[in-house]
Amino acid sequence: MACCRRCLCCQCCCGEGETRTPEELLQWTILGETHGEDEILPRKDYESLDYDRCINEPFMEVLDGMDNKKARKYEVVKWIVVFAIGACTGLVGLFVDFFVRLFSHLKFSIVEKSVEACTEKGCLALSLLELLAFNMTFIFIASVLVLIEPVAAGSGIPEIKCYLNGVKIPGIVRLRTFVCKAVGVLFTVAGGLFVGKEGPMIHSGAIVGAGLPQFQSITFKKIRFNFPYFRTDRDKRDFVSAGAAAGVAAAFGAPIGGTLFSLEEGSSFWNQELTWKVLFCSMSATFTLNFFRSGILYNSWGSFQLPGLLNFGEFKCSDSDKKCHLWTAVDLAFFVVMGIFGGLLGALFNCLNKRLAKYRMRNVHPKAKFVRVLESLLVTMVTTIVLFVASMTLGECRDLSSPTNTDNATHVSNSEDVNSTIKTFFCPNKTYNDMATLFFNPQEVAIHQLFHQDSTFSPVSLSIFFVLYFLLACWTYGISVPSGLFVPSLLCGAAYGRLVANILKTYIGMDHVYSGTFALVGAASFLGGVVRMTISLTVILIESTNEITYGLPIMITLMVAKWTGDFFNKGIYDIHIMLRGVPLLEWETEVEMDKLTASDIMEPNLTYVYPHTRIQSLVSILRTTVYHAFPVVTENRGNEKEFMKGNVLISNNIRFKKSSILTRAGEQRRRSQSMKSYPSSELRNVCDELAGTEQAEEAEDMLQQMLERRHVPYPNLYPDQSPSEEWTMEERFRPLTFHGLILRSQLVNLLIRGVCYAENQSSATQPRLSYTEMTEDYPRYPDIHDLDLALLNPRMIVDVAPYMNPCPYTVSPNTRVSQVFNLFRTMGLRHLPVVNAVGEIVGIITRHNLTHEFLLAKLRQHCITI
Amino acid sequence: MACCRRCLCCQCCCGEGETRTPEELLQWTILGETHGEDEILPRKDYESLDYDRCINEPFMEVLDGMDNKKARKYEVVKWIVVFAIGACTGLVGLFVDFFVRLFSHLKFSIVEKSVEACTEKGCLALSLLELLAFNMTFIFIASVLVLIEPVAAGSGIPEIKCYLNGVKIPGIVRLRTFVCKAVGVLFTVAGGLFVGKEGPMIHSGAIVGAGLPQFQSITFKKIRFNFPYFRTDRDKRDFVSAGAAAGVAAAFGAPIGGTLFSLEEGSSFWNQELTWKVLFCSMSATFTLNFFRSGILYNSWGSFQLPGLLNFGEFKCSDSDKKCHLWTAVDLAFFVVMGIFGGLLGALFNCLNKRLAKYRMRNVHPKAKFVRVLESLLVTMVTTIVLFVASMTLGECRDLSSPTNTDNATHVSNSEDVNSTIKTFFCPNKTYNDMATLFFNPQEVAIHQLFHQDSTFSPVSLSIFFVLYFLLACWTYGISVPSGLFVPSLLCGAAYGRLVANILKTYIGMDHVYSGTFALVGAASFLGGVVRMTISLTVILIESTNEITYGLPIMITLMVAKWTGDFFNKGIYDIHIMLRGVPLLEWETEVEMDKLTASDIMEPNLTYVYPHTRIQSLVSILRTTVYHAFPVVTENRGNEKEFMKGNVLISNNIRFKKSSILTRAGEQRRRSQSMKSYPSSELRNVCDELAGTEQAEEAEDMLQQMLERRHVPYPNLYPDQSPSEEWTMEERFRPLTFHGLILRSQLVNLLIRGVCYAENQSSATQPRLSYTEMTEDYPRYPDIHDLDLALLNPRMIVDVAPYMNPCPYTVSPNTRVSQVFNLFRTMGLRHLPVVNAVGEIVGIITRHNLTHEFLLAKLRQHCITI
Repeated sequence: MACCRRCLCCQCCCGEGETRTPEELLQWTILGETHGEDEILPRKDYESLDYDRCINEPFMEVLDGMDNKKARKYEVVKWIVVFAIGACTGLVGLFVDFFVRLFSHLKFSIVEKSVEACTEKGCLALSLLELLAFNMTFIFIASVLVLIEPVAAGSGIPEIKCYLNGVKIPGIVRLRTFVCKAVGVLFTVAGGLFVGKEGPMIHSGAIVGAGLPQFQSITFKKIRFNFPYFRTDRDKRDFVSAGAAAGVAAAFGAPIGGTLFSLEEGSSFWNQELTWKVLFCSMSATFTLNFFRSGILYNSWGSFQLPGLLNFGEFKCSDSDKKCHLWTAVDLAFFVVMGIFGGLLGALFNCLNKRLAKYRMRNVHPKAKFVRVLESLLVTMVTTIVLFVASMTLGECRDLSSPTNTDNATHVSNSEDVNSTIKTFFCPNKTYNDMATLFFNPQEVAIHQLFHQDSTFSPVSLSIFFVLYFLLACWTYGISVPSGLFVPSLLCGAAYGRLVANILKTYIGMDHVYSGTFALVGAASFLGGVVRMTISLTVILIESTNEITYGLPIMITLMVAKWTGDFFNKGIYDIHIMLRGVPLLEWETEVEMDKLTASDIMEPNLTYVYPHTRIQSLVSILRTTVYHAFPVVTENRGNEKEFMKGNVLISNNIRFKKSSILTRAGEQRRRSQSMKSYPSSELRNVCDELAGTEQAEEAEDMLQQMLERRHVPYPNLYPDQSPSEEWTMEERFRPLTFHGLILRSQLVNLLIRGVCYAENQSSATQPRLSYTEMTEDYPRYPDIHDLDLALLNPRMIVDVAPYMNPCPYTVSPNTRVSQVFNLFRTMGLRHLPVVNAVGEIVGIITRHNLTHEFLLAKLRQHCITI
Repeated sequence: MACCRRCLCCQCCCGEGETRTPEELLQWTILGETHGEDEILPRKDYESLDYDRCINEPFMEVLDGMDNKKARKYEVVKWIVVFAIGACTGLVGLFVDFFVRLFSHLKFSIVEKSVEACTEKGCLALSLLELLAFNMTFIFIASVLVLIEPVAAGSGIPEIKCYLNGVKIPGIVRLRTFVCKAVGVLFTVAGGLFVGKEGPMIHSGAIVGAGLPQFQSITFKKIRFNFPYFRTDRDKRDFVSAGAAAGVAAAFGAPIGGTLFSLEEGSSFWNQELTWKVLFCSMSATFTLNFFRSGILYNSWGSFQLPGLLNFGEFKCSDSDKKCHLWTAVDLAFFVVMGIFGGLLGALFNCLNKRLAKYRMRNVHPKAKFVRVLESLLVTMVTTIVLFVASMTLGECRDLSSPTNTDNATHVSNSEDVNSTIKTFFCPNKTYNDMATLFFNPQEVAIHQLFHQDSTFSPVSLSIFFVLYFLLACWTYGISVPSGLFVPSLLCGAAYGRLVANILKTYIGMDHVYSGTFALVGAASFLGGVVRMTISLTVILIESTNEITYGLPIMITLMVAKWTGDFFNKGIYDIHIMLRGVPLLEWETEVEMDKLTASDIMEPNLTYVYPHTRIQSLVSILRTTVYHAFPVVTENRGNEKEFMKGNVLISNNIRFKKSSILTRAGEQRRRSQSMKSYPSSELRNVCDELAGTEQAEEAEDMLQQMLERRHVPYPNLYPDQSPSEEWTMEERFRPLTFHGLILRSQLVNLLIRGVCYAENQSSATQPRLSYTEMTEDYPRYPDIHDLDLALLNPRMIVDVAPYMNPCPYTVSPNTRVSQVFNLFRTMGLRHLPVVNAVGEIVGIITRHNLTHEFLLAKLRQHCITI
């Protein structure tokens, strides 16, 4: 009762979704449609990664050949690979940074010269055209690159987040994506759009991590080394997490933050060895980048002077001012308020961007591809004009900071650094144009200005800058160019923070506040409000400032911003993930979900495979279903001999039965469909029977029966007492003892490599595949439809037992959802069989059965049935 | 074959252990004996924590009463509690630090005055006596405190490591331990022993975490608030990890390092919510401490000037010296070499300390308790004399650094700070006594000197200091006082690093090296060699230096030091854990262990409970066994009616059978023993039968049978085909369908609260316990022997089904050890039932079945049987 009351309440809150049953949901999500304005359901066509280890016989052979010495060698190889990933990611960062600097410098110096020349002549329109020409060219190149590989668009963090969460998204870790992303982002940033290079850097790092240890590429098929290691999803995901961490480390000079980013986004358990490697990889990336940048920029090779690509400079009170503190306890209260506003602004940003993204999905994406290029060019044009006009007309001339407090050495160098990048358009000597300083510099420089410029920016300029930047950045994120979001958010937030500091100083008279800290906190609050990251973002910001004492203010601000923002919507990355319909798993289920058990959410319609199956049945199953895994089962009735029309085979000490010939209703129907290509007409096999159970017309009452049976807590506890004569319909749901899981890819592989034996021989005559042969085609296993059926003898039998996963983790049907979720997420599973108290498989749980939307629908249904 | 060859080889390596069977191992470990010189086996009397959630009916009631609003409220309470833990830990740190400073200052100022006065008069012996009097008094107090609560001795990190690993160690999180530890460490440090306060701080933080959320204490039983939350091992361990992190954060000013310390030591999966809370707790601790210290020491309340208790000062090149770099690429090579030597020195330290600890276990611990106090006093006396004599006689007078490079402001303040703590005993003006500066200062100050003193220390002094310090610190760690190891290791290592820098500068002519960096790297290498921590130590050191650029050198040094050290022995904490025989679980199993399956390592002799059991049977089981959990089972034979002499009961839709009257051999024997206290003589119950199976005489051939049966991969796949007439012996191993696990504490609780029903009534009449009632006695549930049997009617029946854990994680008997281990460790399990393909329980795996020693013994046995 209590449950139902709350459920009804939750129905009210959820609004339109109330009449939807999980079955409808399932149907829709298979189709991948989007319903309504606000609801995009997780699509069924995303696969999970296979993080769990499959210890079958080929693997055991490898294991048998593995002694401690070999294991150690393998470990050393891993360390080397991890170092290489870090170093390469660092070099990618170097490459991007170098060319961005080069192009930006080129562009700004030419345009500035022109502006300065035109200040007197009055030919500013010409300068604008020059700038436009530069920017449009750069963005055009970036857009065309994204046309070649569409997944290279955007920041890449949503994709990496999905990958680390365990979802396979096609193409995101390919070499072609890497090239388009790395080169594209260079031109996007140089093209003056309000985007950052950090997200794409992380994506690039992840691709390096995925690709480098494979020593092969799908793009260049001919280049193949004999390097058969790391050909599993498990290893690949580990390396991707290392690569992503290296990307963060290179982008922000934050190796610890990078490691925590990987951990926060990766669902895996805390694996010490892996974490240690990830940290090493991050360090390698940071210091490779550091080494080369110090060498190239300062010509001091080997000195490691520069931290990451984005660093915030040194926050430091001048020593002469003993009363100056970076922050005090009183400031904390302001930081909390700033966090709230930052969260609100972030939520607004996300809301606008979501609407925009939906508009794009409906109106831009279905059209011809060049429309996307045109959109990018339009954004570029508007951005450039706004930037130019604002700099020229809206700026104020401000005094440079007085040189009195520059009497000590450190401060001078710091100020010098900052003062070298101010812009003095139209301003008299010793003053500068504040708007132009912000707009007419690379974004990192503008952030530095806001953090460290002792002179003030006028509140009006800051407000205008903030609003313009906010809107343009929001419009930009989502167009078809590689584009990060960190730097624009930081800059936008820093303007907001600096504005607050200015107001406090000027109007409230709090002279002691340190503007840099407020700018930093403002940046943190806005970024936190947009991306809603917590631990890793705190650490990244602490590391970027290289000032541990900022820990508390940053953390409190981020916390408040996240909580405020979460009140309205999700983080921007989650929004874009949701818009794609990726079935992402959250960290935990809600408390209410524990009203459901595994049997409530599992998929009961399964297609089974027997340990010894004829090739014809396997092909039929593979061609008529879309499942990626098949439970390997035997029947366990007491009167099992009735079913045993085939021969009993003993293979590998496991006693299995093969039931081959059964004539039943539905056979004709099935024969007539979807099997036309198969040369043989002998399709009378139990497996075929079972394969047919997903046919809609019969499945419904079956499902009802199944559900009813499952409501008896321990169905078929006493199999002998169940009725034995009346199972015309029930028969398909007869108790099936579960022995293991076999993947579609493994079955296809067995068929292609001709692993089978003749009926009159023992299964020992079946050829044995090695581990290398099983994984050779990783990551793209051939499809069943590529199989040349003429080469196969349909009467041959395949013994799948040696190749299945004999001991996957299982749960009982009464297990609560939170426990199921925990196991699934922590262990990185792909399929979780639900096995009842007597060892019969009653269903399978996959990622799609654990998404929030599915659980919510099931909870509603559950409450209604009570 | 290949397997056996390697096993034989591994036998050779392992030396003496080769003839030992797992059964012998088991027997020994129950007794907790130590065999041989080098081998201390994990003891069986340590319990595991119960991290897994038990979702039984009382819990479901709580869940039903829980809506999202309440859940949110609960969450807010958690945040507040976490903040309180952090703040309290910070205050504890403040307390310890304040009094250490006070006492040290008192002591040193008096003694120094005396020394200075005596320099002329020649009454140095008097000064020595003064110093001795101070030190001996302080240490005497500390020792007496440890006598009151013996677990307060040592650093506390091994205990916390065990706790976070999931082992319950009696007394370590008690209030009394807290008081003894916190007050004790204060006197130990003030007493001039070569110990640190960091380890005890971490332990104190952990106790605060464990105790504060309970709002009650065993020491003060009368103080009880009505606060029924957090009464589970799960919550407690979460809070302990937060507290330990706060301890690290307070001690080192390293909130991120503290969080990572908790993660590294805690076995749990990466739980984002928890990690976020732990980080918040660490931040609270750091900044509480920071706030009060800034206020008290600098009288600038609210400015947060000071980082943690231990901080390394600012590493900074003077700005005038443009060629100065903190480190360069060339230095990295030296760091690697230093890491190797640091690892060697650490291994030597550990080896010596291990021998010493063993000597103490044999010769000191068995004796009267005051012997330990005498030992502490002896160590104090020797330390004091060495320190005094070395300072007076072995020091060299060195020139103070030239004031030429102090022309800039920052550097002056830094130098001033450092120069204020030098000691000038017997030295002329403008020079100082280098040995006295190191020995006659608090250790933190000495570390500062080594890191930042621009003037040199003579190589001879450094060498002597290193050797003396090394030996004394090694002798000290293990005596009966609270004593940390971080600071002594850092100081010792810093001396070594500084020595290397001096040699490089003076003899090799590498003028550019920055001595501070070398001292830091030396400190890191030695500390790494001793404690072998990785990720968290890297981060702690980076945070303590507040210099992100030290990341790579510190990491590489620690890595090399750890690898070098691991070549010889384990880390010091692991050694002390091993000496106590705690069954700690490593991070992963070795690759070779995958030759074993769950059935090889499980405990097959179980004591079962039926869902409906008479009180007499329960009492008999609880009194005659030591197990902490009992599987709840039903029999599942086809001819089950033979067994059903009792009545069939239907409870909660679960159909359970109760077999009550069975007369069998062994009944008389059992009746005559261990049940004398029981008032009733009716003991004929199947459960009694089962309870008797651990009797040694019959168990052996039973075990043999069981093992043989388990070698058939799917035993009893067809229960009907098994022989039904001959099971006089086998009967006890009849197939038992597994339904859930019930803990000893839960059973005792049910008995004490009179949860039972009469034979002629339905089980619905049984009183229902609420969740609060079930957990009220946490953490110390009453013992079965405290139960007043006269109050119980032995014929009443208890329905345990609502209170058991109905869906624990299970594994199949063929699951490989690595997978079992992974599940067990990641999920923080206490009991892992092994269930075969038809749902029968065949064994249970606990922590003791997964220790390295047990697995190794089983692997040997496995290879021999092949």
